Amino acid sequence: MHSPELENLIKAIARLPGIGARGARRIALHLLRDPAKHLVPFMTALTRAGETISVCQICGNLDSQNPCFICADPNRADGTICVVADINDLWAFERTGAHRGLYHVLGGVISALNGVGPGELRLTELLARLDGLREIILALPPTVDGQMTAHIVQERIAATAPNVIITRLAVGIPIGGAIEYLDEGTLRLAVSTRR
Amino acid sequence: MHSPELENLIKAIARLPGIGARGARRIALHLLRDPAKHLVPFMTALTRAGETISVCQICGNLDSQNPCFICADPNRADGTICVVADINDLWAFERTGAHRGLYHVLGGVISALNGVGPGELRLTELLARLDGLREIILALPPTVDGQMTAHIVQERIAATAPNVIITRLAVGIPIGGAIEYLDEGTLRLAVSTRR
Repeated sequence: MHSPELENLIKAIARLPGIGARGARRIALHLLRDPAKHLVPFMTALTRAGETISVCQICGNLDSQNPCFICADPNRADGTICVVADINDLWAFERTGAHRGLYHVLGGVISALNGVGPGELRLTELLARLDGLREIILALPPTVDGQMTAHIVQERIAATAPNVIITRLAVGIPIGGAIEYLDEGTLRLAVSTRR
Repeated sequence: MHSPELENLIKAIARLPGIGARGARRIALHLLRDPAKHLVPFMTALTRAGETISVCQICGNLDSQNPCFICADPNRADGTICVVADINDLWAFERTGAHRGLYHVLGGVISALNGVGPGELRLTELLARLDGLREIILALPPTVDGQMTAHIVQERIAATAPNVIITRLAVGIPIGGAIEYLDEGTLRLAVSTRR
């Protein structure tokens, strides 16, 4: 029904995360209806980002400088590394400002189902950063795969640098969350680790 | 917190219809994490579409040929034009295959609130197509603005070509819709126009 170029564009948009067929049609239409106003600036932003942004060779963050602005910042507490699964998680920490140390992005979690082993993650790169480190915060997702990954990362760190303190994020009730809807595991842990 | 190029890209993505700040970050990350795999094919699809697709000079549809494949198709019933507000509506009709005639995209509806007058719509182009026409189907949205637009379009058509039959889409209960949740206006019309 559409020309191949339009069909290809709608399919390419629908492959982006969180966009379905209906949303992709709407976006394609928005871009092509007035190309000078919408398509051209959008492509300029994509081109500029593609030309300048790369993965930080140290922590795995995305930035226009490499090492990234966090790794290059002399004011960050370089004795602490917060290990996250994904760049999105790093950004979430940065939005809170709660962590003033460095980061390490693993690039996923170990998952038998998705065929992701320790070799697919940036684990060797993490172990190479342990020298002189005081603390590693394992901020991996509170899922079965995430916790399994945390366990393996913890073992590898302990084997390489036994003096590094390894901590994990507290588990408990989220602020604004309703206790009655909380899963039993979280509630049990929130009680046993009460302060 | 992000580099200007990354910030610009996230903002450009968030300006697309139906995408918020969170979704924009996720899409930017998806594209930049592995640019060769995601960003490059996406930009190729955008470039190809931008180069080939244009607005049909007759009906206002988007296509890689101009006049578009519908206007150029000798097998379409050229005595009937279905008038729609938006290209999206034309595509919705085409997906059903219910209309075998031609189309005319107005490019919006008249709206005092949004400052859209008859001059902003492709109304003159519609009036230029009335010669030899049998029927105009007014398929404008069932909103106050849509029906006001339909009324004005109808008046203009009647003044230019009084012999053209003007019809509107039937109003009634949508298939699969629950009667108890239907608005009173629709229900009243569905009763008075029962068959």
